[in-house]
Amino acid sequence: MKLHKSLAIMALVATTGLSSLSLASATSEAFGKNVTNTNILESEVQAAQEAWGKALIQIGKDFDSKGLKKAKATAQAVLDAAYGYNMGTVLFKPTLTQGNQVFRTTKEGALAYFVGDNSAYPNDSGFALKGWQKYEFKNAGVYINGNMALTMGNVMLTDKKGQVTQVDKTWGFVKDNQGKLRIVLHHSSLPYKP
Amino acid sequence: MKLHKSLAIMALVATTGLSSLSLASATSEAFGKNVTNTNILESEVQAAQEAWGKALIQIGKDFDSKGLKKAKATAQAVLDAAYGYNMGTVLFKPTLTQGNQVFRTTKEGALAYFVGDNSAYPNDSGFALKGWQKYEFKNAGVYINGNMALTMGNVMLTDKKGQVTQVDKTWGFVKDNQGKLRIVLHHSSLPYKP
Amino acid sequence: MKLHKSLAIMALVATTGLSSLSLASATSEAFGKNVTNTNILESEVQAAQEAWGKALIQIGKDFDSKGLKKAKATAQAVLDAAYGYNMGTVLFKPTLTQGNQVFRTTKEGALAYFVGDNSAYPNDSGFALKGWQKYEFKNAGVYINGNMALTMGNVMLTDKKGQVTQVDKTWGFVKDNQGKLRIVLHHSSLPYKP
Amino acid sequence: MKLHKSLAIMALVATTGLSSLSLASATSEAFGKNVTNTNILESEVQAAQEAWGKALIQIGKDFDSKGLKKAKATAQAVLDAAYGYNMGTVLFKPTLTQGNQVFRTTKEGALAYFVGDNSAYPNDSGFALKGWQKYEFKNAGVYINGNMALTMGNVMLTDKKGQVTQVDKTWGFVKDNQGKLRIVLHHSSLPYKP
Repeated sequence: MKLHKSLAIMALVATTGLSSLSLASATSEAFGKNVTNTNILESEVQAAQEAWGKALIQIGKDFDSKGLKKAKATAQAVLDAAYGYNMGTVLFKPTLTQGNQVFRTTKEGALAYFVGDNSAYPNDSGFALKGWQKYEFKNAGVYINGNMALTMGNVMLTDKKGQVTQVDKTWGFVKDNQGKLRIVLHHSSLPYKP
Repeated sequence: MKLHKSLAIMALVATTGLSSLSLASATSEAFGKNVTNTNILESEVQAAQEAWGKALIQIGKDFDSKGLKKAKATAQAVLDAAYGYNMGTVLFKPTLTQGNQVFRTTKEGALAYFVGDNSAYPNDSGFALKGWQKYEFKNAGVYINGNMALTMGNVMLTDKKGQVTQVDKTWGFVKDNQGKLRIVLHHSSLPYKP
Repeated sequence: MKLHKSLAIMALVATTGLSSLSLASATSEAFGKNVTNTNILESEVQAAQEAWGKALIQIGKDFDSKGLKKAKATAQAVLDAAYGYNMGTVLFKPTLTQGNQVFRTTKEGALAYFVGDNSAYPNDSGFALKGWQKYEFKNAGVYINGNMALTMGNVMLTDKKGQVTQVDKTWGFVKDNQGKLRIVLHHSSLPYKP
Repeated sequence: MKLHKSLAIMALVATTGLSSLSLASATSEAFGKNVTNTNILESEVQAAQEAWGKALIQIGKDFDSKGLKKAKATAQAVLDAAYGYNMGTVLFKPTLTQGNQVFRTTKEGALAYFVGDNSAYPNDSGFALKGWQKYEFKNAGVYINGNMALTMGNVMLTDKKGQVTQVDKTWGFVKDNQGKLRIVLHHSSLPYKP
């Protein structure tokens, strides 16, 4: 089981770029050696957004080619690698959740949202299984403060028929001690229609 | 003009609790004197949420009793006191914005949302002028990291007819050098309706 | 070897209190559940100072009762548990270093200072092997900022003859993702004598 | 009085580079507009070190050419511009302090150290009045974490006779809301002589 998961993470890293960024060896712009800098770079925020988009598409591809079990393993690996559930509560409001299950502060709830197949979350059909083909980000603003970065903007997802779903999305990333950005905040909502 | 604004802020502080919290004199739990602690306390986050709710209601009351000009002055004072537009970009996605004006990263855009009356924002009728009578928060999760705090949950607003509007709301607060919490992130959305 | 080291750490935890503090389960003062707070508490800073004092004495006790090999293992465990060499550069200026070996930014250099026995550091006789019996802290000031805390003050160490050595000491602690405080800055110096 | 002080600060800014760095307009490396980044850059840390060195020399020059009153005004301006006494406690252990006045957590104590002339600090003869001509930094390590940066290394000060005094120096800088680095930690000590 654990081996399976490790392999899933390794494969995911290879295909999506959800890799661990080296912390201590951050290029020293001014001082040379013996510099440790734990702060988030904008390029790291961009890479984390890209990795999220690629991972979403990968889960759908794995579902189409290898079935639900594989898609679930990939989704679990994404949650382990890209979200901060191992660091505490994650503030996650997915786009299409409702009732008393709007917020998914646990990994189980997040997994159910992405791949469904959990009787405790009967309304979840698996957002990542919808066969998304393309993603695009339009950031409206970015706020970087220490080891935390916030982004807000639009995300456009294109499905197999070429139809585009646009959402308003806010992310909060924290850089962990290994230098890896992890999502600890994710608020996604459909555009307001008067 | 500036005097007018100062008075508006002072009045607001008195009625809503949007006051400046003392930083350097934070009670020292263990070391006694000579302790400076810039970190956010949970109680400060709660106070900031309460102040936001009270300020929203106050703008509406001022509109009803004294008209648009007064309401606008109050709203401006709220933005000056409670948001972080003086510290840079604010990531603000109000509940009811649309088109290419969804995000309000400037103070002007935020003010237009709350009180309308700005021809550059033709769809804004003034969210704070709707006569809200009551607010309630149900936090789903809180993440405190240094001088930054994130909250996610539901906000219920009750209007004059007793009807309740519920939104999904995310806030990001930063504590400034004066020890005051400022909103630098605000994503609000109506519940998803399948 | 690794087992040996793990056992040394476990024993050290039992005797000195150099234990890992739980992060995610920090008592929630206001919000109840689903709160993650990565900030440093003053009580954690105090505990980290105490743990350093106890560890210093323990290394000396282990040297006296079990010899250099055991003392070295304990010192290594202390460095692994209490310092941040696993997180990058540590800014360490020990009390009694000289020449071009004043600063010990690597774990090897720190270990040599505490237990000597390293030909690359010929002036190091092992500060922790001097048989310290008692420690006392007098903090002059504390600065807590996010996941980082700075302390400055006097440390008084008493040897077997009852003689007291007083130093001026500055520490910088960072709280890691496991909620453990780690020393990333340590400047110690003898009092100025005109 | 206040005008005098403002003028002193302005003159100081012109001669030493102790100027306020713009925060909100930090060059956006990746996202373009609407980016706020409060983190410290290495170049800012270097600039802050340089400004400290220049300011120390300037106080001495002002003393030589214009007398104690002017030197005192300059020193006060340096403390206001470069240290964090306006933000809380400053952890300051100057090189040559003794007895129960080793630590200077207040601005008054810091001023006395730099320019003397304070009967409450009888041992202070004015470190900045010694006519320092040149400074040089050799950083041994740097740790940047959010809006805080720590540096440790040697500082070499050359006097009028060409004699060099070397100290071991640790600094802790905090970036304030105006984007200005302020010293909140300063531990300086003469080299250990066995």
